[in-house]
Amino acid sequence: MRSASMGFALLPLLTGQIALAQATQPQTPPAQTAPAVEDFKPASSNQGGKEYPQVNSERRARFRIVAPQAQSVRVPEWGGITLTKGEDGAWVGTTRPLDEGFHYYRVNIDGAEVPDPGSKPYFGAGRWGSAIEIPAQDEDFYAVKAVPHGQLRQNLYFSTSTNTARRCFVYTPADYDKDTGTRYPVLYLQHGAFEDETGWGNQGHANLILDNLITAGKSRPFIIVMDNGGNNFAGGTRRSAPPAPGGAGVAGGRPRFDFSAFAKIVTDELIPFIDANYRTLADQPHRAMAGLSMGGAQTRQITLANLDKFSHVGLFSGGSIAANDPALTDPAAFTQKVKVLFVSYGSKENTAAAKANHEALERLGIKNIYYESPSTAHEWQTWRRSLYQFAPLVFQD
Amino acid sequence: MRSASMGFALLPLLTGQIALAQATQPQTPPAQTAPAVEDFKPASSNQGGKEYPQVNSERRARFRIVAPQAQSVRVPEWGGITLTKGEDGAWVGTTRPLDEGFHYYRVNIDGAEVPDPGSKPYFGAGRWGSAIEIPAQDEDFYAVKAVPHGQLRQNLYFSTSTNTARRCFVYTPADYDKDTGTRYPVLYLQHGAFEDETGWGNQGHANLILDNLITAGKSRPFIIVMDNGGNNFAGGTRRSAPPAPGGAGVAGGRPRFDFSAFAKIVTDELIPFIDANYRTLADQPHRAMAGLSMGGAQTRQITLANLDKFSHVGLFSGGSIAANDPALTDPAAFTQKVKVLFVSYGSKENTAAAKANHEALERLGIKNIYYESPSTAHEWQTWRRSLYQFAPLVFQD
Repeated sequence: MRSASMGFALLPLLTGQIALAQATQPQTPPAQTAPAVEDFKPASSNQGGKEYPQVNSERRARFRIVAPQAQSVRVPEWGGITLTKGEDGAWVGTTRPLDEGFHYYRVNIDGAEVPDPGSKPYFGAGRWGSAIEIPAQDEDFYAVKAVPHGQLRQNLYFSTSTNTARRCFVYTPADYDKDTGTRYPVLYLQHGAFEDETGWGNQGHANLILDNLITAGKSRPFIIVMDNGGNNFAGGTRRSAPPAPGGAGVAGGRPRFDFSAFAKIVTDELIPFIDANYRTLADQPHRAMAGLSMGGAQTRQITLANLDKFSHVGLFSGGSIAANDPALTDPAAFTQKVKVLFVSYGSKENTAAAKANHEALERLGIKNIYYESPSTAHEWQTWRRSLYQFAPLVFQD
Repeated sequence: MRSASMGFALLPLLTGQIALAQATQPQTPPAQTAPAVEDFKPASSNQGGKEYPQVNSERRARFRIVAPQAQSVRVPEWGGITLTKGEDGAWVGTTRPLDEGFHYYRVNIDGAEVPDPGSKPYFGAGRWGSAIEIPAQDEDFYAVKAVPHGQLRQNLYFSTSTNTARRCFVYTPADYDKDTGTRYPVLYLQHGAFEDETGWGNQGHANLILDNLITAGKSRPFIIVMDNGGNNFAGGTRRSAPPAPGGAGVAGGRPRFDFSAFAKIVTDELIPFIDANYRTLADQPHRAMAGLSMGGAQTRQITLANLDKFSHVGLFSGGSIAANDPALTDPAAFTQKVKVLFVSYGSKENTAAAKANHEALERLGIKNIYYESPSTAHEWQTWRRSLYQFAPLVFQD
């Protein structure tokens, strides 16, 4: 677990904004004042046919774990939910109202941290584990609808720099296999720390967001590539790209984290693989990169070091660019290369630096977009909404 | 859980061979006679970075669950493995030598049946749960190698007969996007009861088996379609095709199970969707169907009722065809339509009826292949090997 610990410890130093997903949830005890409204229904994140966990109209979650001989059953998230044993041997507990969107959680049975057998599995927080979907008022934009659907394609490719087979997922828009004379722009879209290449499909619904945007005529059809940015252990036979030796540390008084191994994979292996195997528009004006949290930090590092390769940049809860950043020494040159610079946060995150940077860049004449997701924290609803806002802006040449 | 219970109860009546995967493992207590050889290594089915479960050179599995306050930790499979608590609060238990291949299992902590947090999640036995891979002598045929890899594509399509969005996975061979003038034969490949459309990719490695066979020149490149055959609850918002009302029962003294709702989806919705969206050879000579266990029974029912649509039939631990089957009334007509009839079982299954049927069909002049997987039961190693044997035989026109 060495590199995970390293990433966890160092990332908060990087921007003051990046942290393990979920870590910014307030660690206060659940409110026990008012009884819950008894209109609970199975969560949409459940395994088919599973009645629990459930969600009610107040956005409370209710967990139920059958463990007849257990001494204690808890859900450690949200300040700690202590479940109570009923006469049927099942333990039940209810949360305070939660934020809209998607939350990882665990179940602790007599000291064993295990997945809830009611939840579908999601990779996050460094493990395949449980999560609960709290219905959001705007959930329509990532709903499965009777519209033309693109494909989500698993690709295996050999990486010479790591001497491993790597996996990436590629979203191709609905008409990709029909308009075989058409070439498409590409967005490279990265997960956060302790997540992996399955995150944007399974919990982010990137494919459904694009299906719906494209059908509504709000977004140009483009390809999305989702690779494994490391700092997790999802790989099985695959291995995450390790930090370069000596790469993490303090340089010139400024903490930094070195994503150079992953950067090399992106520029020297992944992009060539995608351009060789998909009908891409394989040039700088038609290549974007975005990422959430750690993936945003990777996006910033990789795009700013490769402005000959990327023209659109999205940082979702993953830092922003200060006016004194060396990349902005020549603002006019920067704006000529970077057509869209998009920074977003959840309103419950610490947004002060990003807002200040946004305004400072505007004063420099660098047009950039700042988006704030209402009433969400450092979690997937912020990032789903960020993609929904970002996608219509890109590749508008 | 109504239809799952129904399927479980009725399926054994169908052929005497079909049962829930894993159910044929002998329910004898583990042998405690000799100490295990202490060369245990993490299983390849583990989540990356997880040290347990482990496997040793004798093919024993060792489980380790951290549950400091638990009173009892068990693995109910293989006759029941009772784990013993160590001074570090972790519970450890070791199995007898297991069959080569892939085995589902659960962990029971003080009465709670939960996934092992060390295993990657697999859908089987009606749930997303745990499994352990026991290395097989022939594992090379489904290994990830530095060969050209096909894609595994998730497709969403709208089903009018069920009024739901359905999901299928489609394997396209490595050259599919390059040889855009080429059209390909299609194999429809089905999972077993209490499994779903993820099974052949995640645990069956159908994509890797074909990648390796095609690279070796042993198999013609073809497309594989893996849909959800029902009798499980994997769908989330999707729903399994229910048995037709009144469809299950006894007709003419012969027990039968009605897969007609799924059959209608295959012939009226799935095949047209695939032929409209992939470069298929959309005719009977270039369309095969195969399946394991319940999927074999579905394959038999669907292909025999649609010999104008299918020319190759694979039944993997899923019954066989008796010489007095109405479909064989005219053996010459049957052999003109069915180019390959392939039946397989694991050697630890009850194979008497399949062997007898194989010989009876040969006597009728109906060429058919019987394959027996050495030293395996009603489990995935039997079915991986069956696909490996079946694939080189099909589409040899």
